[in-house]
Amino acid sequence: MTDTIEAAARPRPLALADLHASLTDPVLDAMNFLNEVVARFPEALSFAPGRPAEGTFRTEDLTRYIRTYCDHLEHERGWTREQVRTQLFQYGRTNGIIHELIARTLANDEGIHVSPQAVVVTTGCQEAMLLTLRALFSRPEDTLLVSSPCYVGITGAARLLDIAVRPVPEGADGPDPDEVLAAVRATRAAGGRPKALYVVPDFANPSGTSMAVEARERLLAIAAEEDLLILEDDPYGFFVRTGSPRPTLKALDRERRVLHLGSFAKTALPGARVGYVVADQEVAGPGGRRTLLADELSKIKSMTTVNTSAVGQAVVGGLLIESGCRLREANAAAIAHYRSTMNTLLGELERHFPAERRRALGVRWNEPDGGFFLVVDVPFAADTKALERSARTFGVLWTPMSDFHLDGGGRRRLRLSCSALEPERIVEGVRRLARFIEAEAAGAEG
Amino acid sequence: MTDTIEAAARPRPLALADLHASLTDPVLDAMNFLNEVVARFPEALSFAPGRPAEGTFRTEDLTRYIRTYCDHLEHERGWTREQVRTQLFQYGRTNGIIHELIARTLANDEGIHVSPQAVVVTTGCQEAMLLTLRALFSRPEDTLLVSSPCYVGITGAARLLDIAVRPVPEGADGPDPDEVLAAVRATRAAGGRPKALYVVPDFANPSGTSMAVEARERLLAIAAEEDLLILEDDPYGFFVRTGSPRPTLKALDRERRVLHLGSFAKTALPGARVGYVVADQEVAGPGGRRTLLADELSKIKSMTTVNTSAVGQAVVGGLLIESGCRLREANAAAIAHYRSTMNTLLGELERHFPAERRRALGVRWNEPDGGFFLVVDVPFAADTKALERSARTFGVLWTPMSDFHLDGGGRRRLRLSCSALEPERIVEGVRRLARFIEAEAAGAEG
Repeated sequence: MTDTIEAAARPRPLALADLHASLTDPVLDAMNFLNEVVARFPEALSFAPGRPAEGTFRTEDLTRYIRTYCDHLEHERGWTREQVRTQLFQYGRTNGIIHELIARTLANDEGIHVSPQAVVVTTGCQEAMLLTLRALFSRPEDTLLVSSPCYVGITGAARLLDIAVRPVPEGADGPDPDEVLAAVRATRAAGGRPKALYVVPDFANPSGTSMAVEARERLLAIAAEEDLLILEDDPYGFFVRTGSPRPTLKALDRERRVLHLGSFAKTALPGARVGYVVADQEVAGPGGRRTLLADELSKIKSMTTVNTSAVGQAVVGGLLIESGCRLREANAAAIAHYRSTMNTLLGELERHFPAERRRALGVRWNEPDGGFFLVVDVPFAADTKALERSARTFGVLWTPMSDFHLDGGGRRRLRLSCSALEPERIVEGVRRLARFIEAEAAGAEG
Repeated sequence: MTDTIEAAARPRPLALADLHASLTDPVLDAMNFLNEVVARFPEALSFAPGRPAEGTFRTEDLTRYIRTYCDHLEHERGWTREQVRTQLFQYGRTNGIIHELIARTLANDEGIHVSPQAVVVTTGCQEAMLLTLRALFSRPEDTLLVSSPCYVGITGAARLLDIAVRPVPEGADGPDPDEVLAAVRATRAAGGRPKALYVVPDFANPSGTSMAVEARERLLAIAAEEDLLILEDDPYGFFVRTGSPRPTLKALDRERRVLHLGSFAKTALPGARVGYVVADQEVAGPGGRRTLLADELSKIKSMTTVNTSAVGQAVVGGLLIESGCRLREANAAAIAHYRSTMNTLLGELERHFPAERRRALGVRWNEPDGGFFLVVDVPFAADTKALERSARTFGVLWTPMSDFHLDGGGRRRLRLSCSALEPERIVEGVRRLARFIEAEAAGAEG
């Protein structure tokens, strides 16, 4: 009786089908499923998340960074204590309060020389993507090209804004300029307007690939010829395993075709939630008025988050100040850590699957020059069902590569991330993974 | 010669007309103009910004709040130091880490009893608006009703997402339920689908009006009958000047028609950039699956900012803990401050424009029961040109009410905010404002 009354009084639910289509996007479902599996098998050893290592970070560092930032304002820049207080307490400059420190760091670390006014500080790199896409895309035919397989953050943001996306298949050396050119032309032929290309030139998530310097130069030339902007995302660029760091697209950009998206989540800490975008393009308005694209992004930011947390900015600002605005040097230990974890992962894969065995099985993997991720080709469908078997029976998690493809690719590939694992966990994880792959391969044969 | 070469090499600018239409929205232009005027007349006394008073806040409080939050995790909840470190450093729960503290505070302060799972912690209330609008609005005919004059944050977010907006004229007692009903019907008659109404029930920005309790009840009944959701924004509810606090719409909501948007910008500090939305509506998905709307918002948040800054949340979390999750009590001094500033403002207006004088001039103002804002009717166009004369000749700034109208209203009205001004500044400000109004009125006559 009570049940009936409660059921009758229970408010009508909303219909999911009536909410925005992004909520039923297969990619979101895939991500949710992944999170569910991780939650259901908490004991499983996980190569899934791309989270940074916590290294020598201590909680107390946060308060020290904030003090360093405040001391800098007071002693280096001559602010009063009242002014410092207002900076931390109050609403502030929409495009951020540590833009000068970021510009100085970009000059030191990347040879990117831009006015601080061109730097928009954002609530993580994700907001930088959102602002950038919102500003640049205005008509239904405007199309975003994405190197595929692709980070879900950018395709998700495009989905929120109902922006058309066209995947550009990448090769073993990352995005291929000729494929980009072909995609630009095919988009135009189909009535679309290719406005920008999203690309991760160094140690991409998910594939681990990197572009050669010549390919970067050629991509910039194509962008200039085809009136295409490039959204360069470079969260992993510091983490070189083999060879030398390569110049970012922005450092090579003479035609201002590149918007450089930046993250401090891997080089400082995700918990501050501070990222940025360098948008030094000029915008021509009515009456010959010229603004910076960064100023236009500011208008949009005032409608997404108003400000990036002043406290979060103070944390990152203090960290930059303590490093002398040389974040690459400050990341020496992290660079060594990620080099070591990737080398351990590659070594363990090699130990479990020596050349002959992997040929026999049809298993192989790439050997990224750095970053957090590598991809393993397997002789079976690396789908959610396989992932569940892997977690349940073998106690090891990974990410299906098909989650990162917009066009049904990556079915027999899986992504491994070793960024936050200690060496002995990697050793154990690859042992489990090898048992899983051997079992699946036997099953696929049988 | 060099000039010519540089001009030739200068990269082509982007065309503003080719960027998203929100960038050329008249409201944004109005806001920019306002900011420009403020910047050009830094010596002017400003009744324009609605920023909170800084009170007794000290920069050192930030680090204490963070320590309080960490101590709470360690000592009250039994976390290890490692777990606390990870909470602050790492990516975390998309919907936030202080949702339980917020739910407890809402119960104590507002009598709003919801599961912490229904609370989505956001990067300021602005992100809460963005997430909510994105989730709820899916088709071109979906229409957002807004009480008009209206806070630009909500109309701006709607503009970013290309959502149709219909203003509902408010009366002297705020949003009028009958006008809402009429707008719902008119929207439907025009082929639109009214999905939600945005409303500030207490001491609205910009008008200062408040809804009577009976009007709240009637609005909720209309929402249930007409299948309308209510987006309730209540940043000023604590700041009562006369009378008693009234229940929020969410506290009265038995049919789960209300999404309660929350801000800590006025009751804690804007610099943390922490807000929230209570979304306890059920969502019915395929196969009979039920989720909370908060879980759906989480999917969208993962594509806007991923997480709200853990550091910002720790600051607000520490502050909530120190207040025993009774933020209203913790705001006693702030409530007294805003009561006093508004009383001073009203008193000074009365002193400069006694009844006879204001009748003669055609000047009047409302007497809000609380909050930061009041509105003055003047006998001339209170437009940007008048604002510039006011700043240049009289050294006083205010906000044209027309900026908050979507339908050309508010031409002869201006908004005054006294939230962050000390009494002697208000006295001087009204003196200047009175001279300006007298001069304009004389000009309008002449």
